[in-house]
Order: sequence, then structure tokens, then C-alpha cells
Amino acid sequence: MPSEFELIARYFARPDFLEPGVAMGPGDDCALLTPTPGQQLAVSVDTSVIDVHFPADAPAWAIGHRCVAVALSDLAAMGARARWCVMALTLPEADEAWLAAFAEGFHALCAAHGVALVGGDVTRGALSIAVTVHGEVPAREALKRSGGRAGDILAVSGPLGGGAGGLHAWRSGVRDLADPLLAAYLLPQPRLAAGQALRGLAHCAIDISDGLLGDLGHLCAASKLGAELDVERLPLAEGLTAALGEDAARQAALTGGDDYELLFSLPATALAGVKHRLSDLGLHLNVIGRLKESPGIGGVGIGDLPTGWQHFPGAPS
Amino acid sequence: MPSEFELIARYFARPDFLEPGVAMGPGDDCALLTPTPGQQLAVSVDTSVIDVHFPADAPAWAIGHRCVAVALSDLAAMGARARWCVMALTLPEADEAWLAAFAEGFHALCAAHGVALVGGDVTRGALSIAVTVHGEVPAREALKRSGGRAGDILAVSGPLGGGAGGLHAWRSGVRDLADPLLAAYLLPQPRLAAGQALRGLAHCAIDISDGLLGDLGHLCAASKLGAELDVERLPLAEGLTAALGEDAARQAALTGGDDYELLFSLPATALAGVKHRLSDLGLHLNVIGRLKESPGIGGVGIGDLPTGWQHFPGAPS
Repeated sequence: MPSEFELIARYFARPDFLEPGVAMGPGDDCALLTPTPGQQLAVSVDTSVIDVHFPADAPAWAIGHRCVAVALSDLAAMGARARWCVMALTLPEADEAWLAAFAEGFHALCAAHGVALVGGDVTRGALSIAVTVHGEVPAREALKRSGGRAGDILAVSGPLGGGAGGLHAWRSGVRDLADPLLAAYLLPQPRLAAGQALRGLAHCAIDISDGLLGDLGHLCAASKLGAELDVERLPLAEGLTAALGEDAARQAALTGGDDYELLFSLPATALAGVKHRLSDLGLHLNVIGRLKESPGIGGVGIGDLPTGWQHFPGAPS
Repeated sequence: MPSEFELIARYFARPDFLEPGVAMGPGDDCALLTPTPGQQLAVSVDTSVIDVHFPADAPAWAIGHRCVAVALSDLAAMGARARWCVMALTLPEADEAWLAAFAEGFHALCAAHGVALVGGDVTRGALSIAVTVHGEVPAREALKRSGGRAGDILAVSGPLGGGAGGLHAWRSGVRDLADPLLAAYLLPQPRLAAGQALRGLAHCAIDISDGLLGDLGHLCAASKLGAELDVERLPLAEGLTAALGEDAARQAALTGGDDYELLFSLPATALAGVKHRLSDLGLHLNVIGRLKESPGIGGVGIGDLPTGWQHFPGAPS
């Protein structure tokens, strides 16, 4: 069995010192990075835990992809350009075939977004991956949750409910990653280009990881506003209604979580511009409601609002 | 039971937006940091896993202290000034008393070193804490493992074997954190000031987390040199010989790990200057050998060299 250090070297070392901004990659006590002058550094960490965030028997390369994707999604929500990441990998055993596939999925998504893996830590324990991502955004141009204004149009960058629909598909025995729902769940695409395209036009943004209603609640709280949703206009993931039926499909889009599309607000005057920019990226802007002065989220067509998915359910936050 | 979001807000939110360099702290998708012009960003991540890195029944505030300390130790080894951290906390349950004590230990060590906790993620699972630390160091002044030169003096910033001795004490039933061995194991002090004091004088540095021989091996490999140790001169942790006996004490200092002192090399001409700087910090420079041209580590007084502690033992690295 190879040593911890050999494992790290074999599967995760890349010639990152050649990457822009990487003065020193993995192999020393720290990575050394050269931030771009005039940019702010955006930092976020996301942990993916076996049987909580992905099924134990999910393909290793999908797990590798997914644990990076969910972390990069936070950079997308700020309008940041992704630059670097470090990974804390906890493993029950050193299964080389698993590691090779995991690393392949991890590196492929990093490469697609120009992200250098500059450091990591491998420990023994229940399978868990914490990825800390670093992006850059011009000073004072970051998209926050707090910039929304009453009257803003609310929009999302893509279809909803795919995360919940894909989990349902997996539990129903679907294993083909070409299935659009399963792909939405296991291979989400962080909307980094969309986030950057929204800078200067959108007023606020968040990524939908906890479910539309939960994350809209965060956005409203930070912006000190309410929202009126047009539930009929929610874009549903391909195959969702066929798989779940109409009511459950809409519920999945509202509260399912794990969709990793961007939810953002913009003034009506910016609508054409944002549509155009997203269209250039092959994405469709979906208007789903408006921000309003009075608190609360209306138009959902149900009584009490369900909250987003939480690890420790309890009193509404 | 409070929600995940309330837990985070209650125990880990601090008014970090007031901290220098923090444009936005916890509460949005990312933290936004303002790097100092002319400085390189040093980044490292360390995971602390229950029953691997600390005993399950260790005091929560000691676990909070320790998981930050081991991460900050990597910044110390680069000569970096500590600035910011993010934490991925995985918990089996939301035990409020435990969380309060853990957060207290975590924040106290951060405050002692001017570190702002700017973001985090809380998930459910076996107890594990991954801390990603960010420091700054003037461009091209970082201490690497690779700068050693043949003839350099090898030195350490403090006594060795305390980590192993403290684990032994814990297993023997010692619970008093005033016990110097137990304190060395559960409450290690990252040598941040020492690391910065070494800049411009030391040629290379590493922190002793895997054990002196293991980390000296890393330093020699990176510097493409060998070393000659003077085992008689190894500074032993207070109480170590009394607790373990002479032979086991020396073995603990050589291979025990978890000491978090700095190991560094310097030219003889810099010795007085480094001694003076460390003395100003209340630390004692301990000369323990020399770097040499020929490979291998001599002077250990045993046959095959034991390697440092590894999570996945196997072929020597």
C-alpha cells in the first residue's frame, strides 16, 4: 500500500507552478499565490459528506466533479473568476482505483474553469471532502445577497428541481449519467461565466443550494425586502414532471435544493442586456417574480412557506 | 434544536468586517478579502479528525484551539503573517455546550494571532474540522523547504517529543491541561512570530508535524541534501524523560510527531542574529545538526531510519 505522501503526489499533484498566479503549488507547507492587483479575493469552503451530499456508491469521478462544483458555485454567485482551490480529503482507506477516478473528475472540472489545485491534506476517516475555493473579483464589483431593490425582477439562470429529481432517480435505480435529472444531481455545472456576466447589471445574487425558497429567503433577508413569486413561470428541469408528477415537480423546484443555478435580481432596464449576455453563454434567463418592499414571500400558492433544506432542522432561520 | 444557520451565526459569527483586509465576512456566498499589495498569499489546509488527531473525549475548547493551531503552524513554517481562515466543521449532532466551548478555543487562538474567521460550512457527519488558513508574506521572502545549503546549521525552535509524550499522558489518564506534556499535545502553539523572525536569515524551514526525522526527510529531499543529526543535543520536552524513560523519550523526539516546532537551516554567520531574534520572542534556538552534501540522515545511532508518522503507512516516501 502506498504511503499518504505518494498518494497525494500520484493523484493530485499537477504542474500548478505553471499556472498563472501560482508561485508555488503543492509540496511545501503552504502554497504561495500572487493575487492580482486591484482585485478582491473571494473565498468559500464547502464540505461534501458521504451519504449526506452524495450516495456512497456514486461513481468516484462524479463525486470528484461534484465536490468542486458545489464550492465553485459560491464563487459564481459573487461574480468572481475562479482561480485556486485546496482540498481536505478524508478517506477510510487508500483505494487506488477510486482515487484515480475521483482525481480525474476533480481535475477535469478544475481545468474547465481554469482552477489550480494548489494544496491539500489527506486524512483517514469517513469519506468527506472539504474544498476551499479562491476567486478574484474587481474591488467593489462583487455580487452580494444584499443589493436587491424593491421592484427588481427576480430571475434564475436555468431550470430548477433537477437536484431533487436526480436524487429521486438515483434512489429509483437510475445509474445512467446521461439521464438529465441524474446529471443535474451528480454533475452540477457551476455558473461561473454567468455570474461574471451579471456584474454591473444584476443588483444581487445567490446560488440555489438550499432550495429556491430557502435561498430566496436569504436574499430577501440580506436585502431587507420581500418577494412575489410567479410559480407558474418556474423553469422545471427536463423530465422532472414526467418523473414526479406536476405537484411534486413544482415542490422540487421550490424546495428541493442542490440545483446550483444562480438566483439574482435586476432592474427592468437591465433585462435585455442580461438576457443577451446569458444567451451568449448558451443560457436562458428565466424571470420568476419580483422583489417587493413588504416582507415575506408571496405567490407560492400554499400556506406556510417551507424553508430550504438544512442539516440541523429546527426553528425557521 | 436550532437550525444550522442559527448555529453558525451564534457561535462563529464575529464582526470580522471590522478586521483589516476583510471587505465582507461570513454571511454571503463568499468572504471578500483585500490582499495587501506586494505580498504573496500563503494558503494551507489541515484536517483534524476525531480519534485520529485528537481523543473523542478531549475538551471541546482544546479541540477548537488545536485544529487552528496545526493549520497556522504551516503559515509559521513559511514565515508568513496569519490573516484569515475558513472552517469546514462536520458534526454528528448539534451539541450546544460542546459548540460553545469549541468556538471559544477556536476564536481565542485566532485572536491571539490576529486571524479573522471569515467563512465556514457546517455539515452533519463524524466529527472532523478542516481549517484553511491564509497568510501573507512579502514576495520572494517565504521560507521554503528547498533553500537549504550544505554546511548549514540545523536548528529547532523548541523542545521535541511533547506531542507523543502528551498522547501517552492522556492515555495514562492525565487530564490536567497544566501538565506540560498534555499541553504540548492538546494545546500546541504555532510558531508564527518565530517563522517571521527567521525570514532573511534562515535558508529553509518546515514545521514538525510528522516527527523530526520525517520532516527532516522532507526538508532534505526538497533541498537535495542529507543531514547529520547530533541526537545528544535534541531538546526534550519537559517531563518527557521522567514519563517515558531515556530511550523512549529520544525516540519520541525523533519520530513522535505533533510537536509543531519549526525545523530550519541557517548559515553559521546568521546564528547569532537568529538566536537574538528568537530570544526576543522568549524562544531558545536549539542546534541539532547540520545539512551535508551526501544523501541520507546520519547520527541517529540506529540502523534503518524510521519515517515520520503517516496515515497510510507503506513504502517509504
